Amino acid sequence: MRAVYYEGSRRFRLGACQPEPPAAGEVRLEVAFCGVCGTDLHIALGHMDGRVPTPMVIGHEMSGRVAELGSDVSPELAVGDPVVVRPLDSRDETAADRGLSHIARKMRFLGIDSPGAFQASWTVPAFTIHKLPAETKLLLAAFVEPLAVACHDVRRGRLQPGETAVVIGCGPIGLLIALVGREAGAAVIVVEVDEERRAMASRLGLTVLNAEGDDVRAEVMERTGGAGADVVFEVSGSKSGALLMTGLSALRGRIVVVAIFAEPVPARLFDLFWSELEVIGARVYEPEDYERAIELVAGGLLPLQELVTSIEPLDRLPGFFEASSTGSRGMKTLIDCQA
Amino acid sequence: MRAVYYEGSRRFRLGACQPEPPAAGEVRLEVAFCGVCGTDLHIALGHMDGRVPTPMVIGHEMSGRVAELGSDVSPELAVGDPVVVRPLDSRDETAADRGLSHIARKMRFLGIDSPGAFQASWTVPAFTIHKLPAETKLLLAAFVEPLAVACHDVRRGRLQPGETAVVIGCGPIGLLIALVGREAGAAVIVVEVDEERRAMASRLGLTVLNAEGDDVRAEVMERTGGAGADVVFEVSGSKSGALLMTGLSALRGRIVVVAIFAEPVPARLFDLFWSELEVIGARVYEPEDYERAIELVAGGLLPLQELVTSIEPLDRLPGFFEASSTGSRGMKTLIDCQA
Repeated sequence: MRAVYYEGSRRFRLGACQPEPPAAGEVRLEVAFCGVCGTDLHIALGHMDGRVPTPMVIGHEMSGRVAELGSDVSPELAVGDPVVVRPLDSRDETAADRGLSHIARKMRFLGIDSPGAFQASWTVPAFTIHKLPAETKLLLAAFVEPLAVACHDVRRGRLQPGETAVVIGCGPIGLLIALVGREAGAAVIVVEVDEERRAMASRLGLTVLNAEGDDVRAEVMERTGGAGADVVFEVSGSKSGALLMTGLSALRGRIVVVAIFAEPVPARLFDLFWSELEVIGARVYEPEDYERAIELVAGGLLPLQELVTSIEPLDRLPGFFEASSTGSRGMKTLIDCQA
Repeated sequence: MRAVYYEGSRRFRLGACQPEPPAAGEVRLEVAFCGVCGTDLHIALGHMDGRVPTPMVIGHEMSGRVAELGSDVSPELAVGDPVVVRPLDSRDETAADRGLSHIARKMRFLGIDSPGAFQASWTVPAFTIHKLPAETKLLLAAFVEPLAVACHDVRRGRLQPGETAVVIGCGPIGLLIALVGREAGAAVIVVEVDEERRAMASRLGLTVLNAEGDDVRAEVMERTGGAGADVVFEVSGSKSGALLMTGLSALRGRIVVVAIFAEPVPARLFDLFWSELEVIGARVYEPEDYERAIELVAGGLLPLQELVTSIEPLDRLPGFFEASSTGSRGMKTLIDCQA
């Protein structure tokens, strides 16, 4: 049983996994697969060294099975059950957080602030666990976490059947938002600079615009009878995306800010005023987003298999992080944590 | 009967008012009072010469009485009735505007795009008219238009009794938002750089912070038990206001962008994501905002008299615009259009 430890300063080490017996209210899992998230890549680049304790296992897009139950765990969970983890620990929330546990000011993120899933055995609080239907493919269940992000974003944007959505930025989260939006009955237009990513979105049947070559605003207006988009998702995190987003909207359109903008960026607040737009921040997910994501995965409602760039054994993860810092990283790499 | 004509290039001319007989669906009004709006000052500075046809009478914050009725006007209106005008003409709206007449893309604003109220006699479409209760003071009824802006902003922010609101920028609109918010049962904190404006807000019993001297964020957090404000109104139109607004909010707080930002300005989109904020644009008003503003004026529910800096006859208006381009302009100057 192995684990990959982040040691800080961009260094990872393959080591032994020490199975941790579950305390009261905890569950020990056998991790099946764990996807590599953009946040993991940020950690690997050293950008989050001020936050991530070291040495520590990271990783949070996992699927697995219950291996061992601590005391005081719901009798609904049994050894062998297929599960995913909603990696939010909000036990330190206060009244000032107003019950918004998922964004509580002292919320700790499993795999960032405390140990994560890039290991064969992972012990977690039982309240983080969502059970999967028995027939769920564990490989694709590693998409539940990022898919729950997309479900949350779509829900925050109040996207309705028949509406038009524009997704700016078509990395893994943008693409999942586009697929969830289409499944919800919306017409989806994807805007992306990268040719490979545009090609993938096209293969999945999405309407794709080139952020640099096309007159995106004119195209969106033409496709919406001059009205503009009902919901725009800003997922690029780019200055150009932040300037573009407000110009694509219908009157009283909604714009969901999904991307993490590390620094203040210029935004056209005039457009907010002029067209009475609504710009909505969205972060992680709530339990109902996990349940929706599980339905989508278990029901086979989305072409998730197409997003898998490769499946790698745990011992290749350090090398993958090293390579990702320089070259292309495809769409979604899944780590087989038992291999 | 006189009128003040804007002639372009910062020039105004006092001239004769030519009463215009009302056509079908029109009403001729005798204008009582007309307030000077920030937009009028922008026009006076030549900033809107590309939009405003010349020579033309401007002004839109008026009160008055029905003087003459055209044909096809509702029998509910009679000569002598006290009225105000909601100066929006959306007869050119299209399906792409989705019924949002007040912000329709081809909406024309009376007093900017077509003749306004700085004249003794004004002929307008009947659909722009709201009747006032018989006992309403016409002097204070000139506040209905800017007050309707404030009512709209408060409504767009969904401000509830018991919530905390922060108003950044305490000019006429900011102050009216603060008063409407307080009347709605909210705790209101005003943030302003100008000492005179802070003094006026204090006299009106509002909690006031100095945008430059106080640690505004710390004060707001302390006064809200660490939660932050439920609703922030950005009315300053300043770069510092745009940066400040997102840091004052509670989790899932609402921020209403009221000010007109002519250029893109840096905004902390990170805060939107992190705290799931909602930034809401608000522009002009809808009929129900006018009705609420009329209730507030007619019911004497707000200390509007305190906001009146001076009442000037029409012939002093050109000089007032000239003086305003350099010096202080107080809170609200009302023009007596019959004097």
